[in-house]
Amino acid sequence: MSDPTVKVIQSPWFRGVPDSEAQEFLKLTKPIKVKKGARFIEAGETPKIFGFVTQGLFRFLYTDQEGKEYTKVFMPENSFVSAYSAMVLNQASHFSIEALENSEVLAISYVDWLKLKESNPCWNELLIKVLEKAFIMKEARERELLFLDAESRYQIFLERFPNLEHRLKQHMIASYLGIAPESLSRVRKKEQP
Amino acid sequence: MSDPTVKVIQSPWFRGVPDSEAQEFLKLTKPIKVKKGARFIEAGETPKIFGFVTQGLFRFLYTDQEGKEYTKVFMPENSFVSAYSAMVLNQASHFSIEALENSEVLAISYVDWLKLKESNPCWNELLIKVLEKAFIMKEARERELLFLDAESRYQIFLERFPNLEHRLKQHMIASYLGIAPESLSRVRKKEQP
Repeated sequence: MSDPTVKVIQSPWFRGVPDSEAQEFLKLTKPIKVKKGARFIEAGETPKIFGFVTQGLFRFLYTDQEGKEYTKVFMPENSFVSAYSAMVLNQASHFSIEALENSEVLAISYVDWLKLKESNPCWNELLIKVLEKAFIMKEARERELLFLDAESRYQIFLERFPNLEHRLKQHMIASYLGIAPESLSRVRKKEQP
Repeated sequence: MSDPTVKVIQSPWFRGVPDSEAQEFLKLTKPIKVKKGARFIEAGETPKIFGFVTQGLFRFLYTDQEGKEYTKVFMPENSFVSAYSAMVLNQASHFSIEALENSEVLAISYVDWLKLKESNPCWNELLIKVLEKAFIMKEARERELLFLDAESRYQIFLERFPNLEHRLKQHMIASYLGIAPESLSRVRKKEQP
């Protein structure tokens, strides 16, 4: 298996980060294995760490009082995973981050990150890229859930997460699309003439 | 009336921005009056500018194919107003930014802003604050619309936008809460025992 630290540095997020700074980042990280079904962040806890996915696949999910799950987003390799709002506000997270495969994350404490961020302006640049992507994604999702029908949402899912379809169970995809699994079956049949 | 440029510099967003830099920002801005009912950004156009509200009140709204409106957010004085995703991606905006009162915005072109941002790291700090606030707001809204009932949403609206209630028509608030105006009447009556 390739060295996970190499993966981080080679990821597009780290373009613009000098090698010496990337090494400083890596020194602060700790690899954490998260088994399939386990959670990197649990709803109700105040997150003190965030991570970079070097292997595997996660989803962010809300669970309502009846135990019904709602999937916010999928996060495959080369994504940052964090309950960012809760971490910044130092509050309990409303959602969990669950591994859908046996996964590995390079985890860093938020406190260490803040210190690193102060030390070199390159980290603000990276943070802006991450926040902008997250914001753009959330705005797109908002619009899709408000205005688009199941077929269009499914099409966008396929484009947004290429190659994820075969790694996900049908009910996970349905939960992300905000439709019943049976509706997803219908949509899929339409797509395959 | 107070000088709008003073308002900008005194706003919490500009804490940490040196005076000389704030002056550079102001030199790039142009005051734009937006009459009640007019739009600062129109859905379908690719936004080239964004602004800082020095007076008045705006809402971000989607309009669906049947002409039904959905209010994303309200933006009173001391807020940045922009169709940020569309501006960054250089794409047409999916939503409009409409003045709900006679308003004034200090507008700046995105290109000028990007140049300014390159010139001093203080601007990245400000941008991170704005993006974090926007992200936190969007995540909170997502959860509210998914899980909270009309009463709870209304309570949060009152806390989030103190003093806005009397400046807004009932159907605007209902459109923000994602409920029918009649449901809002019921909720309000409950709140006033």
